[in-house]
Amino acid sequence: LDTDESIVIGMLGCGVVGGGVADRVLSGITFRAGRLRLGGVLVRDLSKPREPSRVRQHLTTDAERVLNDANIDILVECMGGVEPAAKHVESALRRGIHVVTANKALIADRGARLTAIAGEYGVALRYEAAVGGAIPVIRTLEHLAECDEILEVGGVINGTTNFVLSAMEGGRPLEQAVRDAQRAGFAESDPSTDLEGIDAAHKLAILSATAFGAWPRWESIARRGIREITLDDVEYARSRGCRIKSAAWARRIDRIAIVASVGPTLIPIDHPFAAPRDAENVVLAIARHAGPIILGGVGAGREATASAIIGDLADILRELGRKNSGAPDNEETRYA
Amino acid sequence: LDTDESIVIGMLGCGVVGGGVADRVLSGITFRAGRLRLGGVLVRDLSKPREPSRVRQHLTTDAERVLNDANIDILVECMGGVEPAAKHVESALRRGIHVVTANKALIADRGARLTAIAGEYGVALRYEAAVGGAIPVIRTLEHLAECDEILEVGGVINGTTNFVLSAMEGGRPLEQAVRDAQRAGFAESDPSTDLEGIDAAHKLAILSATAFGAWPRWESIARRGIREITLDDVEYARSRGCRIKSAAWARRIDRIAIVASVGPTLIPIDHPFAAPRDAENVVLAIARHAGPIILGGVGAGREATASAIIGDLADILRELGRKNSGAPDNEETRYA
Repeated sequence: LDTDESIVIGMLGCGVVGGGVADRVLSGITFRAGRLRLGGVLVRDLSKPREPSRVRQHLTTDAERVLNDANIDILVECMGGVEPAAKHVESALRRGIHVVTANKALIADRGARLTAIAGEYGVALRYEAAVGGAIPVIRTLEHLAECDEILEVGGVINGTTNFVLSAMEGGRPLEQAVRDAQRAGFAESDPSTDLEGIDAAHKLAILSATAFGAWPRWESIARRGIREITLDDVEYARSRGCRIKSAAWARRIDRIAIVASVGPTLIPIDHPFAAPRDAENVVLAIARHAGPIILGGVGAGREATASAIIGDLADILRELGRKNSGAPDNEETRYA
Repeated sequence: LDTDESIVIGMLGCGVVGGGVADRVLSGITFRAGRLRLGGVLVRDLSKPREPSRVRQHLTTDAERVLNDANIDILVECMGGVEPAAKHVESALRRGIHVVTANKALIADRGARLTAIAGEYGVALRYEAAVGGAIPVIRTLEHLAECDEILEVGGVINGTTNFVLSAMEGGRPLEQAVRDAQRAGFAESDPSTDLEGIDAAHKLAILSATAFGAWPRWESIARRGIREITLDDVEYARSRGCRIKSAAWARRIDRIAIVASVGPTLIPIDHPFAAPRDAENVVLAIARHAGPIILGGVGAGREATASAIIGDLADILRELGRKNSGAPDNEETRYA
């Protein structure tokens, strides 16, 4: 492949997940439509050590140097947070640049607006990595929503609360379990977003939008955190053949109303929601014809999340490949 | 939508699954690319009662009346067995007709040949319904194989042995459990294909081909049935915290060799393979970057299997929609 056929990836953010994506792109990924090539990568601090270190020559602190590169085809957004990510993503979409993001706060908060802009400018906005890490949750729900009717959707979709509740089953009180999670890299220094169910509410809003075709306000999701859970609660659950999990669930009541909630729930030990440990996630959708569909896997972390982003890039490249193939191929001449 | 925009579906077979598909098509399914319309439906016996009964006016015993209909766009094959299904499917592909099949024996036996013919004639051959019923197994593995490297794949993918082994856990000896399964509609009058692991070997061959990109001979898969399993074995398993499941597993040893086997296996009670009951199936793939991906749901039956076929039809229609949209749309003008 010559350079002209390569697809240029610009990036916003190069932390754990962004570094994982940069690593795979720099290691050389080639799809049928072309080879991925890394363009500019926006970071806040040029002096910070980066993994992989060879990403350094791509780093810049100037967003315009990433977005204004005439060669950029796709922007990968891994900076996190709603702003300034929203501003940059919107700007990219309006310039005709496809966007792949892992940013659940961004999509939960601005999904309706950003998908409308993407539609208007005829570019893709993909966010498989925003929910369930490596688990192909979004693509599966999109397909199911297209050819069936999804009635309910939810899951155990926050790794930090999983880790903390598992540690509590081992006898660690909540505060110690939270410190364990921080040491193990499963919790932020301020763990509120996870412990108070905000992260899960973001993800449930995205699941809900994908399943039911309408963007809810994530703030309107009934939400309880796990801070009040005690070792006595965990022991009570065990005595009833259950585990306590922070479960997220959304159900369509009729064509209009959707009820959605996030919070600690008694889960029978043989229910699929009882299975995930630590960074594992599980998502369950119930459709009118297909019945229940369960998806499980690694819901967080560098490799798993980067993997979902690469999957979204593959989808966009497949689309580009279709459009760029000039002469009608065999497939096109056969069916006409 | 006027009639010209409708997509005509011809069918081979109208038993449990075929009837389910005919029912949904006759009830009216419209995708963006057009509305599905039912053409001819090949059956062996015109006098047999059919569900739904309004399918009767579509029935014929002449395969040519189905395949030679100039309006037919897609053939749905639900007749089962390798021949004459293979002959008809090949004939359809060579006439430029897309094919969707639920026939695992056909794909396991002739997948290499039929996919090559489909490629040559530029038409789609889809078989999501052949493995795992409503669970989106094939599409998920295809995507994963495209953007990652699948190292291992397998699952609990035969409903009959699931039902029988579950009944044995309830104290029923094997032969009684098999009769229970027959009465409940989970086993054929001759249950050998299920009990001897042939059905699971067919499905594992298809999973393996999808995951590893090469069609194995399904007869070469190491295979043990469940006929020798006794209540003592089931009790032994329980005493070790396990359940006996007929598990199918294929593993890539290096770039060339694949080891694959089907047979009764001791599964720890908290392993995902221990969960499925009766018609439930579970499939697990392990990929280099994504790690383990677990998929579960209803693996057999009218609604679940028809649902997978409708999903394949939706995919083909999306492709047709792309090709038939004459003027370049916004999406195409943006990226060029």
